Amino acid sequence: GHSRVDHDRASRNGAPEVIFGQGKTPTQMVEIMGSLASRSSNVLATRVQNAAIEPILAAFPDATHYPASRLIALQRNVPAPATTNVAVVCAGTSDLPVAEEARITAEFLGSPTVAVYDAGVAGLHRLLASIDTIRACRVVIVVAGMEGALPSVVGGLVDAPVIAVPTSVGYGASFGGVAALLGMLNSCASGVSVVNIDNGFGAGFLANRINRL
Amino acid sequence: GHSRVDHDRASRNGAPEVIFGQGKTPTQMVEIMGSLASRSSNVLATRVQNAAIEPILAAFPDATHYPASRLIALQRNVPAPATTNVAVVCAGTSDLPVAEEARITAEFLGSPTVAVYDAGVAGLHRLLASIDTIRACRVVIVVAGMEGALPSVVGGLVDAPVIAVPTSVGYGASFGGVAALLGMLNSCASGVSVVNIDNGFGAGFLANRINRL
Amino acid sequence: GHSRVDHDRASRNGAPEVIFGQGKTPTQMVEIMGSLASRSSNVLATRVQNAAIEPILAAFPDATHYPASRLIALQRNVPAPATTNVAVVCAGTSDLPVAEEARITAEFLGSPTVAVYDAGVAGLHRLLASIDTIRACRVVIVVAGMEGALPSVVGGLVDAPVIAVPTSVGYGASFGGVAALLGMLNSCASGVSVVNIDNGFGAGFLANRINRL
Amino acid sequence: GHSRVDHDRASRNGAPEVIFGQGKTPTQMVEIMGSLASRSSNVLATRVQNAAIEPILAAFPDATHYPASRLIALQRNVPAPATTNVAVVCAGTSDLPVAEEARITAEFLGSPTVAVYDAGVAGLHRLLASIDTIRACRVVIVVAGMEGALPSVVGGLVDAPVIAVPTSVGYGASFGGVAALLGMLNSCASGVSVVNIDNGFGAGFLANRINRL
Amino acid sequence: GHSRVDHDRASRNGAPEVIFGQGKTPTQMVEIMGSLASRSSNVLATRVQNAAIEPILAAFPDATHYPASRLIALQRNVPAPATTNVAVVCAGTSDLPVAEEARITAEFLGSPTVAVYDAGVAGLHRLLASIDTIRACRVVIVVAGMEGALPSVVGGLVDAPVIAVPTSVGYGASFGGVAALLGMLNSCASGVSVVNIDNGFGAGFLANRINRL
Amino acid sequence: GHSRVDHDRASRNGAPEVIFGQGKTPTQMVEIMGSLASRSSNVLATRVQNAAIEPILAAFPDATHYPASRLIALQRNVPAPATTNVAVVCAGTSDLPVAEEARITAEFLGSPTVAVYDAGVAGLHRLLASIDTIRACRVVIVVAGMEGALPSVVGGLVDAPVIAVPTSVGYGASFGGVAALLGMLNSCASGVSVVNIDNGFGAGFLANRINRL
Amino acid sequence: GHSRVDHDRASRNGAPEVIFGQGKTPTQMVEIMGSLASRSSNVLATRVQNAAIEPILAAFPDATHYPASRLIALQRNVPAPATTNVAVVCAGTSDLPVAEEARITAEFLGSPTVAVYDAGVAGLHRLLASIDTIRACRVVIVVAGMEGALPSVVGGLVDAPVIAVPTSVGYGASFGGVAALLGMLNSCASGVSVVNIDNGFGAGFLANRINRL
Amino acid sequence: GHSRVDHDRASRNGAPEVIFGQGKTPTQMVEIMGSLASRSSNVLATRVQNAAIEPILAAFPDATHYPASRLIALQRNVPAPATTNVAVVCAGTSDLPVAEEARITAEFLGSPTVAVYDAGVAGLHRLLASIDTIRACRVVIVVAGMEGALPSVVGGLVDAPVIAVPTSVGYGASFGGVAALLGMLNSCASGVSVVNIDNGFGAGFLANRINRL
Ligand SMILES: Nc1ncnc2c1ncn2[C@@H]1O[C@H](COP(=O)(O)O)[C@@H](O)[C@H]1O
Ligand SMILES: Nc1ncnc2c1ncn2[C@@H]1O[C@H](COP(=O)(O)O)[C@@H](O)[C@H]1O
Ligand SMILES: Nc1ncnc2c1ncn2[C@@H]1O[C@H](COP(=O)(O)O)[C@@H](O)[C@H]1O
Ligand SMILES: Nc1ncnc2c1ncn2[C@@H]1O[C@H](COP(=O)(O)O)[C@@H](O)[C@H]1O
Ligand SMILES: [Mg+2]
Ligand SMILES: [Mg+2]
Ligand SMILES: [Mg+2]
Ligand SMILES: [Mg+2]
Ligand SMILES: [Mg+2]
Ligand SMILES: [Mg+2]
Ligand SMILES: [Mg+2]
Ligand SMILES: [Mg+2]
Repeated sequence: GHSRVDHDRASRNGAPEVIFGQGKTPTQMVEIMGSLASRSSNVLATRVQNAAIEPILAAFPDATHYPASRLIALQRNVPAPATTNVAVVCAGTSDLPVAEEARITAEFLGSPTVAVYDAGVAGLHRLLASIDTIRACRVVIVVAGMEGALPSVVGGLVDAPVIAVPTSVGYGASFGGVAALLGMLNSCASGVSVVNIDNGFGAGFLANRINRL
Repeated sequence: GHSRVDHDRASRNGAPEVIFGQGKTPTQMVEIMGSLASRSSNVLATRVQNAAIEPILAAFPDATHYPASRLIALQRNVPAPATTNVAVVCAGTSDLPVAEEARITAEFLGSPTVAVYDAGVAGLHRLLASIDTIRACRVVIVVAGMEGALPSVVGGLVDAPVIAVPTSVGYGASFGGVAALLGMLNSCASGVSVVNIDNGFGAGFLANRINRL
Repeated sequence: GHSRVDHDRASRNGAPEVIFGQGKTPTQMVEIMGSLASRSSNVLATRVQNAAIEPILAAFPDATHYPASRLIALQRNVPAPATTNVAVVCAGTSDLPVAEEARITAEFLGSPTVAVYDAGVAGLHRLLASIDTIRACRVVIVVAGMEGALPSVVGGLVDAPVIAVPTSVGYGASFGGVAALLGMLNSCASGVSVVNIDNGFGAGFLANRINRL
Repeated sequence: GHSRVDHDRASRNGAPEVIFGQGKTPTQMVEIMGSLASRSSNVLATRVQNAAIEPILAAFPDATHYPASRLIALQRNVPAPATTNVAVVCAGTSDLPVAEEARITAEFLGSPTVAVYDAGVAGLHRLLASIDTIRACRVVIVVAGMEGALPSVVGGLVDAPVIAVPTSVGYGASFGGVAALLGMLNSCASGVSVVNIDNGFGAGFLANRINRL
Repeated sequence: GHSRVDHDRASRNGAPEVIFGQGKTPTQMVEIMGSLASRSSNVLATRVQNAAIEPILAAFPDATHYPASRLIALQRNVPAPATTNVAVVCAGTSDLPVAEEARITAEFLGSPTVAVYDAGVAGLHRLLASIDTIRACRVVIVVAGMEGALPSVVGGLVDAPVIAVPTSVGYGASFGGVAALLGMLNSCASGVSVVNIDNGFGAGFLANRINRL
Repeated sequence: GHSRVDHDRASRNGAPEVIFGQGKTPTQMVEIMGSLASRSSNVLATRVQNAAIEPILAAFPDATHYPASRLIALQRNVPAPATTNVAVVCAGTSDLPVAEEARITAEFLGSPTVAVYDAGVAGLHRLLASIDTIRACRVVIVVAGMEGALPSVVGGLVDAPVIAVPTSVGYGASFGGVAALLGMLNSCASGVSVVNIDNGFGAGFLANRINRL
Repeated sequence: GHSRVDHDRASRNGAPEVIFGQGKTPTQMVEIMGSLASRSSNVLATRVQNAAIEPILAAFPDATHYPASRLIALQRNVPAPATTNVAVVCAGTSDLPVAEEARITAEFLGSPTVAVYDAGVAGLHRLLASIDTIRACRVVIVVAGMEGALPSVVGGLVDAPVIAVPTSVGYGASFGGVAALLGMLNSCASGVSVVNIDNGFGAGFLANRINRL
Repeated sequence: GHSRVDHDRASRNGAPEVIFGQGKTPTQMVEIMGSLASRSSNVLATRVQNAAIEPILAAFPDATHYPASRLIALQRNVPAPATTNVAVVCAGTSDLPVAEEARITAEFLGSPTVAVYDAGVAGLHRLLASIDTIRACRVVIVVAGMEGALPSVVGGLVDAPVIAVPTSVGYGASFGGVAALLGMLNSCASGVSVVNIDNGFGAGFLANRINRL
């Protein structure tokens, strides 16, 4: 067959396999999702391609589709919520699809989230106005495109782990998110680590894992 | 003056400023170290350049120098140790300087560490033999050069947060650590985040921060 | 004329010229295919562009089209099968089009193949469960996108030549397959060599050549 | 001869030619400097290589050498000072050689400068403490390595033109200043423009030109 | 909400926030534009995506759309014009959309502009014929794609600040504007600084800022 | 106006300005073509975009359109033919559009051409069979994509100047022609120079210029 | 300890672990070499750094040092020789250190080799003169720097598997071997696979593995 | 042996093989030079490494060494001089070593040269003052580092073939000559082709070849 679903992953990794939607046919998506749903009550698919949306929603009418973030979530069993919060901070309105991908993933896994959006460094007072909200969280996700400076500034203001997510927002020498990625990898603030460009899912997953320690 | 030491950092970030040794003159190093030592009992300097070693050790005879990892640590007050451990896994013997930079940093900040070295993916049984040791830790640092595949393999076997550190070990198309960096950013294992190439310090710092949550 | 078909290739290289479909007009494709078919009983075309499919199948009704892998094969004379097998291992379901391109090419040239699909390193047990199947083959093709770690792991477990094929599966810092390519070129496992990104054909061709030694 | 000194430049560009020291022999340096000094009372040489320092200082005993910034300045006629100031802000102590190259160049051309050093974004209070000083200047030079985030933050706080100078301070994925350069080119703050990596001279020259408008 | 409009920006930066159109939904665009218009009489949106044009023009019938440059401007209060001019020079007819983005932005902010278009270095007499017009301006914007040589040539002929704008015009090894960008960053003419590829807005904004000093 | 046609170019450069079609509106194309046609009897436009074809052919019914090579040529006055020939060699059928762009340009300017197509290095006998034809030419254009090895092989077999043209034919690590470009720049054969990726026009123009010396 | 020698490798991979000399201290080298020698009669170390040569030769007086190729080989038990040969072809005299690294490795593992050196494509007759020698071998290693064209030409002339080794020989746009690497990955000849830049060891190892099938 | 000297090259390519000094031992250099000298009266070696200079000059006392350009020339038979000239134009004094490498190579092969040095675009009058000298030549070599704009400007002023040579002069975003290389490849002037970074030899060789047509 085309897929060997990793049914054992929840016991090994604390969470079931998540379906990577890119490059899979609609039929494959529905089959993998069915296979996972038969064992685990909750299934998440990321980067779901347009052609697969209808077939998935037809097969799983209780699934929820988040179009901007390209997620489909099937949640038949709400996980016990974590007792602490994950902050999701983003630089501009254009970063919302990735920020929401992170936030929805963390919520899907049971971590309550607090969103602080459109708080980029060019208007610092917006970030400073919300800094106490952010400091009250156990983990902080920071999403930014263009120059990707926000994680450094946030990282200098908090003592929680910071997960930086570069986005492909920008043009020209942003090189599809490379400028932001490099900025985050070279952050002079300590306590910052980085995930792939536009990988909101990865940030949300890791944030929940840390939040539940 | 040449420097504005950030004395407030410990209260804001939970740890005092750490000195970045690259590009600083020996005189600057000694002065900054003295300024920090006057307020905080523990001072760490990274990437200490050769010319600065002697002057620093002369000025701070109780400081410890780790030549392979280019760290100098002044620890006048041992921090209360964390109750859980940080695993430091590395792929090959050549990655040791970076792995040790991470391990010493975490220990300096009070996190006990467990080292699993020379456990690269080309001889998988070595990693599998130590997997229970690794699983017993609260955070896992994985250090690897060349293709940087180890964090993906470890990430698939544990449910702790994995901090991946690419090293510049390699030649040719390793491009000074870029191959390993890209491999880690694209890890198909969830729960993995990445720091800069050869940034053992950053991994150790973040691991301690997570370990103390 | 637009093309000088290399009719002499089978005697020089042990296999007839294969048509590279990219950048050729449908008319050119049909003409080259006809020219080759007039001399050799078997013709293979790769990367066949959409506009050329219909005209080719109209002109050669006995040809077979593999849409996902963009191959068209005309096989009028089944080659004597090799007595040993080629393993085709791939990391994820999304890598299937390239894995199948490799597998179909090897079969077309007469090498029996064994497919081990969706066996990526994040769920190592899947690979380990099939390792004896893989070890029973004379050559191993390993196809992977994203971080491209699978060839290193397989390379450490077998004593057959490993042909690594990076795919463009991934996003962000995968840079269209560059991350996987670099990972494979820097493999710490010995016995691994690499072909171009998404070059399933090249891997299948080489695997058959080695398999028939 | 090896050089055609551009004696006409002062009338065309408002300032005499400046000697680019890289790749010139000591003899060439002394000859070009002599040629310029014969027409203009003030001569500046940048990126002066070690072998040329002694010969230049021997030939022009009234010249001043700035070793960290690799400048040699011959100022026989102090220019009428500008009536407004240029701010030179830098992120870390390691950026000082470039910041000083900018500051000395601006002063050499007659612009008074104000230095705000070691004010990186990881300790924002240091910048905020000096923001009124910076706001009182007519042009602002911002020098930063690593992630190069400082110009965006400064750019959001002032209404003067900001000249951003990326430095090669950093390691790994800083790629010799590329990370900082890209960050600055993608700044979400308006009013920011960028010069080459480590080009303190260019920033100081342009700042003086704007300051004298 | 999705956006925190930076209403304070005009007092801090001398000009209200400008809306970055990329990656925003039509609804978001209209809402942000309404929020800004409620406080400031003039609003500018850049990189407006096709889907947003109609909704914006419906909501703000007095707005002006510049299709080639993808700008939408709402100007209810003409700013006091500056008393000096900004020159906008471009290399080829293909660079017009970016040159016009710069020119319209500067005019929107109250700086009169002078356009010298299609004056590339391969036909130098065209530039020389207009050099006195350019020299009469207080700031010079130079827009060029392909090799991006024009700012160096202009920079050698004027004593005003030169803002260089690389464009993505070109093909092959122009790499979407990278060749022009690198050329401009390495200009041997002093007094030149650079903005992002295709960032006509940024050049026009900065030119007006300098022009009003 | 949008364009300053460089009418003087023929006297300065020996050939009239050629219109670069990318990024120009149909209206601009027709106007520039009309302006050039009013002075020069022959006009060539390259990289003509689809939307401009109809309007140009309507305005200049005697113009010829070469769709594969995206050229439009208006030739009202056939130039005196050169007495020696230009060879145009290409590696594969997929390189034909660029090879033809070079060949048509050289013919348009009056140089007779000899085409040797589909003669790539993987089937060397095809090149060797035509080598006397190539050696009889005064200038040799060599067009190749993928690894771009053909100019080195040809360069080792002739004593004429070789103009190498990399094409974007290929996939994966061909990076849109970069692999071929780098191969050609690093040719170990002497007498080879290179033009931009896919720049058939530039090669044809230069070949005619050399051919007419 | 610093190293977990992979003693099991010979049974798994058909050959004992090979020591990667880069980044290891002399002491580590001697210890690892001793550990391996205690189990296996033959030990190979690659990329041996200068400081380690003396200590290794002192500890293992029967070891052989190959300075140009930076190999140290300890061969106490000559392996049963293979019955077929490996051809090692290189483009220029400057590629010899890498070609010899490949050749010595293959010989060390028991494969007889045939060297055809300095046979680059700019003087094709040299290669053609030796083509029968090459065709008589079972595997062909082709080593080339600069444009890396030789594997394509050889690949078109033989029916054996071709292992291409790019070298860092070259300058400028060879980018330390990248031009050759890309050329080889994009080879239009079938049957060619590629190892890392300057990885003569990897090619020799794989050639022996294939040669012994 | 290590080398197969290509004695046949003069008859095939019109000039004997030239020795590439990089990566060759002094012994190899002397042997190859002797082998060539035994057949051809004139021998040229490029990029001669320091260790080889003495041995070569000892073995060939009548050879001439050009240290800045790293050439060694043995000219026992002065070739019949060409009747037309090659212009060698360079942008700055720092480009002299490459410009001289081109000039000496052309002279060695019998083409008289005219040097126009330090004529960069930032001081255009210097170029214009010499333009008639340049126009009187049959071929024009243009050497420039940093932004590499000079070939475009020269190319717009002459009707001779222009050979552009990028140099590695520059720093930061010049990336060792890449900025200049890209600028030249994207030249908007027609009639310009490009050789490798710092490849003065290649330019001089090709210029002589064209000059002798
Ligand atoms: N550090 C520098 N960075 C960039 N350009 C410079 C620098 N120093 C001098 N220049 C410029 O380089 C040119 C002199 O080049 P050259 O003729 O080689 O001395 C002058 O136009 C200077 O304005
Ligand atoms: N075309 C543009 N290029 C660069 N920055 C821009 C552009 N348009 C607007 N901006 C800036 O982007 C910021 C607004 O981002 P956002 O909050 O996402 O709308 C403002 O600070 C603007 O100054
Ligand atoms: N395909 C092409 N590639 C490179 N340069 C070209 C091309 N077509 C025309 N040109 C050059 O581009 C210039 C015209 O640019 P423009 O003024 O934008 O039309 C002329 O100098 C032509 O010689
Ligand atoms: N020159 C080389 N290039 C690539 N891999 C090598 C090289 N030399 C040894 N190796 C591999 O590196 C691994 C040993 O790495 P380490 O544990 O760091 O000594 C073994 O798997 C070898 O097969
Ligand atoms: Mg905003
Ligand atoms: Mg090891
Ligand atoms: Mg899977
Ligand atoms: Mg500091
Ligand atoms: Mg034009
Ligand atoms: Mg063909
Ligand atoms: Mg040779
Ligand atoms: Mg000069």
